Amino acid sequence: MASATAHTNGHAHTFAPLDASRLTIERATTLKPVPEQGTYAFGDIKTDHMLVMTCDPLTGWSAPEIKPYGPLALDPASNCLQYATNVFEGMKAFMGPDGKPRLFRPDQNMARLQTSAARMALPAFDPDALLVCINKLVSLEARWIPSLSGHSLYIRPTMIGTKPSIKVGPSEHAILYTIVTPVGPYFPPTDDTPDGISLLAVGEHVRSWPGGTGGYKLGLNYSPGFVPQRAAAALGYDQVLWLLGDDKRVTEAGAMNFFAVAARADGGVDVVTPPLDGTILPGITRDAALVLLRAHAVDPARGVLALPPTLKIYVHERHLTLPEMSQWAGAGRLRECFGVGTAVLVVAIERIGDVVDEQVAEALEGASKAKPFVDITPTTKRGLGELGTALYDKLLALKEGRENFEGWSVLCE
Amino acid sequence: MASATAHTNGHAHTFAPLDASRLTIERATTLKPVPEQGTYAFGDIKTDHMLVMTCDPLTGWSAPEIKPYGPLALDPASNCLQYATNVFEGMKAFMGPDGKPRLFRPDQNMARLQTSAARMALPAFDPDALLVCINKLVSLEARWIPSLSGHSLYIRPTMIGTKPSIKVGPSEHAILYTIVTPVGPYFPPTDDTPDGISLLAVGEHVRSWPGGTGGYKLGLNYSPGFVPQRAAAALGYDQVLWLLGDDKRVTEAGAMNFFAVAARADGGVDVVTPPLDGTILPGITRDAALVLLRAHAVDPARGVLALPPTLKIYVHERHLTLPEMSQWAGAGRLRECFGVGTAVLVVAIERIGDVVDEQVAEALEGASKAKPFVDITPTTKRGLGELGTALYDKLLALKEGRENFEGWSVLCE
Repeated sequence: MASATAHTNGHAHTFAPLDASRLTIERATTLKPVPEQGTYAFGDIKTDHMLVMTCDPLTGWSAPEIKPYGPLALDPASNCLQYATNVFEGMKAFMGPDGKPRLFRPDQNMARLQTSAARMALPAFDPDALLVCINKLVSLEARWIPSLSGHSLYIRPTMIGTKPSIKVGPSEHAILYTIVTPVGPYFPPTDDTPDGISLLAVGEHVRSWPGGTGGYKLGLNYSPGFVPQRAAAALGYDQVLWLLGDDKRVTEAGAMNFFAVAARADGGVDVVTPPLDGTILPGITRDAALVLLRAHAVDPARGVLALPPTLKIYVHERHLTLPEMSQWAGAGRLRECFGVGTAVLVVAIERIGDVVDEQVAEALEGASKAKPFVDITPTTKRGLGELGTALYDKLLALKEGRENFEGWSVLCE
Repeated sequence: MASATAHTNGHAHTFAPLDASRLTIERATTLKPVPEQGTYAFGDIKTDHMLVMTCDPLTGWSAPEIKPYGPLALDPASNCLQYATNVFEGMKAFMGPDGKPRLFRPDQNMARLQTSAARMALPAFDPDALLVCINKLVSLEARWIPSLSGHSLYIRPTMIGTKPSIKVGPSEHAILYTIVTPVGPYFPPTDDTPDGISLLAVGEHVRSWPGGTGGYKLGLNYSPGFVPQRAAAALGYDQVLWLLGDDKRVTEAGAMNFFAVAARADGGVDVVTPPLDGTILPGITRDAALVLLRAHAVDPARGVLALPPTLKIYVHERHLTLPEMSQWAGAGRLRECFGVGTAVLVVAIERIGDVVDEQVAEALEGASKAKPFVDITPTTKRGLGELGTALYDKLLALKEGRENFEGWSVLCE
């Protein structure tokens, strides 16, 4: 691995690359008890260790450290606290049938983290070296990986700009760290939402915009959604369906990519998801779903997805509007809608509510009731329809290492 | 001050409001040397103390503390690091002619911080109580306030969400802190930029949009500008002029509000600044400039601004496009452009460059040269024209406490 040289104040410094061979491990002296599976909510649990490395503009990347989980000491003027130079990834380690942890297309997460860091003008790093270190962390924390099917160890690589100055501008200082947390289903079944979730369509607040940052995995894409999300919850919806523009184009569903399935006159189905036009996250689960659907469509007899070989699937990455879906629903053509993402895998969308903007404004005050826009009745288990179920089952099998496809399921060691 | 009660797990807790009377002061044991005025760049210097208070969803606001400047210990899962719940304010303390520090309309900053915190779904706080604490901090750090005219102690109140969970959602935990730093001019005169600054008009990247968060002072409005700012610098421009939409509407200039002055056929001048439509920051200096200009326009003989009483001023808050300014420049009507903000006060814009988007893309690779779009020759000192100079002089006199207007200049004690 080559190292670059930086010149400052007439002195030459060697800028060290991120080097996994320099990883040190400091084990926690006492280990925490692992709580019973299925008893905790997403993000509640802190494990014993975390992975940390820092970048300094003069000396480069520090030796990566796995050490006991604990607070980061940050200057109050830090770039990440003042100007939100925070990027992250979401990955999951599943316990395979052989008792070994599996990751799902981790190279994709590493590549996206690089892209996100560059968009925030944060320092570059070697993605392969980071992945080696993450593998070590997951292996060390393997006892935290739940064995229940659908449960996993969620992995959160995070990079933050730590330049200790309030001067507005890029941070050449950074901390790149990874924490992990055992998780069950993101939306646990309850009496209110037995199998799928409901979405409130929101156009008054806009998640992303052409020329904005919606196509990157940045911390700053999430907090602007908290207030609209509260309004949605006040109206009895689980998440927000983000709209863009006068034509009410769908972008994302909460923090998930959105898919709609409509029956065709020829007996087949159209599967539609918004395109990667810069306003939606290039989701890795989204990509996997598209690849699987297309592989199935090309050769239904191959049985990539557990669907009738006679079912013709037509996959479309294109703009999709709320009125269009409403029309499908009215004509009895809307088969199912689902959201996909690392946190949820595939989740059924049972109901989409559309309210006029004034009602959303009222909701922010805690008042009003929405009139549902469309009601999709769950047809099979988990509320998912035929395609959602096939995708969920296939993706889970791949993630749990019970099956493999194009080498997506990767042993973590 | 009333206190509310929160019920959790069947127990009643008293939610403490932010209470300035509970402020404790722990002085630094050794004080840092104060560097010579004018020798440091914006944001370089850390003073001896900072102000910190925390909010807990059960117990409420902690007793505010002034304590030695030092790092904050933050859980790696903190909401502010993961989802960018970071809001801030910018204020300045100037040393008055009586040797006492002055603040400028600090109630406006406190109100805006409240609004920003609410937009990020962060806890509410008593703005008056916070201001009392900030006054104490400034008084304690008074030896850091530069005496040179135009120099000041920059004050950075900051609020961050500290919920220690990666679950996507609002943070009821927060740290509200304030740091201060002595500053000179934000754009120090250099050979390259003698008196004013240059702007590269950028439409490919969009700072804010209708339904977005551009109208709030959030950390997340700033970092997306770092990459375009680098492109502007590579092309020889100081800052970015942010455009929105196909009509190339001007929103902000770097992190400043934008003003253009055009000659009228009747011998007067039109002063135009974009309206508060949610896509620009409601700047306090912007508001002050508008109030002063309008007060002068209504009664030129009163001499609110040092301008010829015969000069008729017409003030407009309205959309302003780049082609419109280009037309003015071509017709010889464009008198001056300037940016306003707490950090810069009033700064001349001497040159605005407009390049096609492909060139901006090239610039990101470090290539290409821009063709200047319009060149505004500086007409008087600091590169500012007649109105910019009058505003600068008046605002500085108010901020330094040499004059007062509507009680804007406030003793800090």
